[in-house]
Amino acid sequence: MHQNYQEFTKLNLKLDMSRGKPSPEQLDLSLSLLNESGISDQVKSSGVDCRNYGVQLGLPEVREFFAPLLEVPTNQVVVEGNSSLALMHDAIVFALLYGTPGNSPWLSDKPITFLCPVPGYDRHFSILEAFGINMINVPLLEDGPDMDIVEDLVSKDASIKGMWCVPKYSNPTGTVYSSEVINRLASMSTAASDFRLFWDDAYRFHHLTEQRISIANVIDLCEAFGNPDRAIVFASTSKMTFAGSGLAILASSLSNINWWQKCVSVRTIGPDKINQLRHLNFFQGSEGIENLMDQHRFILKPKFDIVNAIFEEYLGDLENVSWSKPLGGYFVDLITPPGLAKRTIELAKNAGIILTPAGATFPYGKDPDDKHIRIAPSFPSLDEIKLAAEGVSLSLLQAIAEQKNRA
Amino acid sequence: MHQNYQEFTKLNLKLDMSRGKPSPEQLDLSLSLLNESGISDQVKSSGVDCRNYGVQLGLPEVREFFAPLLEVPTNQVVVEGNSSLALMHDAIVFALLYGTPGNSPWLSDKPITFLCPVPGYDRHFSILEAFGINMINVPLLEDGPDMDIVEDLVSKDASIKGMWCVPKYSNPTGTVYSSEVINRLASMSTAASDFRLFWDDAYRFHHLTEQRISIANVIDLCEAFGNPDRAIVFASTSKMTFAGSGLAILASSLSNINWWQKCVSVRTIGPDKINQLRHLNFFQGSEGIENLMDQHRFILKPKFDIVNAIFEEYLGDLENVSWSKPLGGYFVDLITPPGLAKRTIELAKNAGIILTPAGATFPYGKDPDDKHIRIAPSFPSLDEIKLAAEGVSLSLLQAIAEQKNRA
Repeated sequence: MHQNYQEFTKLNLKLDMSRGKPSPEQLDLSLSLLNESGISDQVKSSGVDCRNYGVQLGLPEVREFFAPLLEVPTNQVVVEGNSSLALMHDAIVFALLYGTPGNSPWLSDKPITFLCPVPGYDRHFSILEAFGINMINVPLLEDGPDMDIVEDLVSKDASIKGMWCVPKYSNPTGTVYSSEVINRLASMSTAASDFRLFWDDAYRFHHLTEQRISIANVIDLCEAFGNPDRAIVFASTSKMTFAGSGLAILASSLSNINWWQKCVSVRTIGPDKINQLRHLNFFQGSEGIENLMDQHRFILKPKFDIVNAIFEEYLGDLENVSWSKPLGGYFVDLITPPGLAKRTIELAKNAGIILTPAGATFPYGKDPDDKHIRIAPSFPSLDEIKLAAEGVSLSLLQAIAEQKNRA
Repeated sequence: MHQNYQEFTKLNLKLDMSRGKPSPEQLDLSLSLLNESGISDQVKSSGVDCRNYGVQLGLPEVREFFAPLLEVPTNQVVVEGNSSLALMHDAIVFALLYGTPGNSPWLSDKPITFLCPVPGYDRHFSILEAFGINMINVPLLEDGPDMDIVEDLVSKDASIKGMWCVPKYSNPTGTVYSSEVINRLASMSTAASDFRLFWDDAYRFHHLTEQRISIANVIDLCEAFGNPDRAIVFASTSKMTFAGSGLAILASSLSNINWWQKCVSVRTIGPDKINQLRHLNFFQGSEGIENLMDQHRFILKPKFDIVNAIFEEYLGDLENVSWSKPLGGYFVDLITPPGLAKRTIELAKNAGIILTPAGATFPYGKDPDDKHIRIAPSFPSLDEIKLAAEGVSLSLLQAIAEQKNRA
């Protein structure tokens, strides 16, 4: 155990725990994606020449593959390029400029507001901020967003057109939405008739324990409660195969899929279908995905365990300090005493450890209590993670000591 | 030589000449793109792990490769996903919502107008129509758009924010812009200070003769005339390698590139860099591109030749009938006597030949003289092209006969 922060800085570390990037070992799991023996016969095999233009919504056999995994019919799944963030961005752009099916463009109904469970994913908030969409923080409780607050807001305020949800192993808290929460989200009355749940199912298959948690099917529930077009579900293989060269997936009601097709066909003549074929070959059925995700887990779990163990060792007895112990996903949310997150991150930086900027997990980069630190243990090696967790712990201890000295 | 349309329809053809799709033989030229032996070492070789997130503007070595080909410095080239149409669409979306560098969003300056040289590319017009941007037809002359008209319009009307240009082997006429035209486009005074040339250099390398025509460098000229941010150049490898799985390229001033980076980084964490690496390996230098494009030419040229020969044979003596004889690109523009394009296309359809819908090469799908038919000879086989050209010729002859009977 390192005794103090000052000694620790002499290690001259250079570690980056700021983003949820897969490690090289995880990327190696999918190296055989690059083995294309036989693929040149297949590119023409399915009645469509995968090399040519077209097939707007993705290869039929690839949509068929993902449909049961997302628990929707094949015609309600779209498989596109390499970035689900791009699909979310574009869905918002299309809603702003065209409006959702049967509704006027969001831009003609300004102001526009989104509910943002916090802490959440900085890139979600960046899209809204870029487009001048107002954001309202909603506390994320143990089982999902605070639904009393959500129901109250959406029922009164017609400017609330949407809400971000990361329903499973939420970034950065690891929160899993309960069935009750999902039921309430699907059934609640909204003042805006074109209200949408932007359902970022980013970590659907990204378990950290043997328990493969599954959550309620939001598309089915929205349909059952008479709000069939409410949920747009996003997923991707970015953290299954290659982070920069995976497949992005959108699932929703047929009406939303038709809308998506209409909007997206103005933008492009079709996605990269060869990469879709490549993935289909690589996964070898849904069991292949489970095996692959087990291998990811074997790499990731020790990293999360060491973070937890180090935090326990250094910070376990401290008042007002806690951290999430996620069952899946990519992040740990370290909660400091109020007012110390920013300083802790600064101290860690001085010790050579890059963390996600303070406040990043809140709209406008503003954590009102300055207490959340997002830890991304996936990329560095296990040894590095251990050092980094020690460094973060010592930085926090130092920040606490500084605060006491000031008092 | 077939004697009449009625007999011809008995052949029960099923040919599609509606879109400029590469043929299977052309796609086969790039089959070794799918041979990835050795690539698994390379994905980590350049200091960046190509498999992971990031590198917003494309792999440095790939930008470096395309820079001299587009005659711009490396930091003024961006290499992205599989669709240059998507880059054009997004550039317009970003201008609408954010404005171009230092300017207010186009949406706050409504109405917005674009100049559209006609006939032109239907997908360009579809983007504008979808976003409610007004389109003004500008005649395309032998050496490019009618610059007297263009200069007059842009100097007076501040709502004119942009203009589509396909400067080389233009779709569908094969027009090559002269240096004088490009000079005038780069230097002209525009009432809108944020006027942009959307320069779709789609056929830069797509020669149909041994003469590799090159045109003036629009980015340099805009810079030289004090309008450095005026031109945004788009290109792609879609019609070099695989139409659905190529690379899209954007080149412009550094200020526009920085703007692009800022906008696009809200949308995605980066393009598919492995596909970029794949292309770099495949091209093997700029000579590789020239060789590849020669092979494309060997496949395409006979198709264009047979179209020309059949049109000559059937239509050569007719008044008011002509067609383009392009030196590059993907299309032939068949000009019928006024009022007969739509009927000819209908008759061809009844004979089993699908052509681009009448009017498609004009904004709003309206060819005011109903006389342009876009012929796309690339996809069908040579035998099929011959039959199709005969069918189109007979359909036009039939339409002319019908018109005479009505008179």
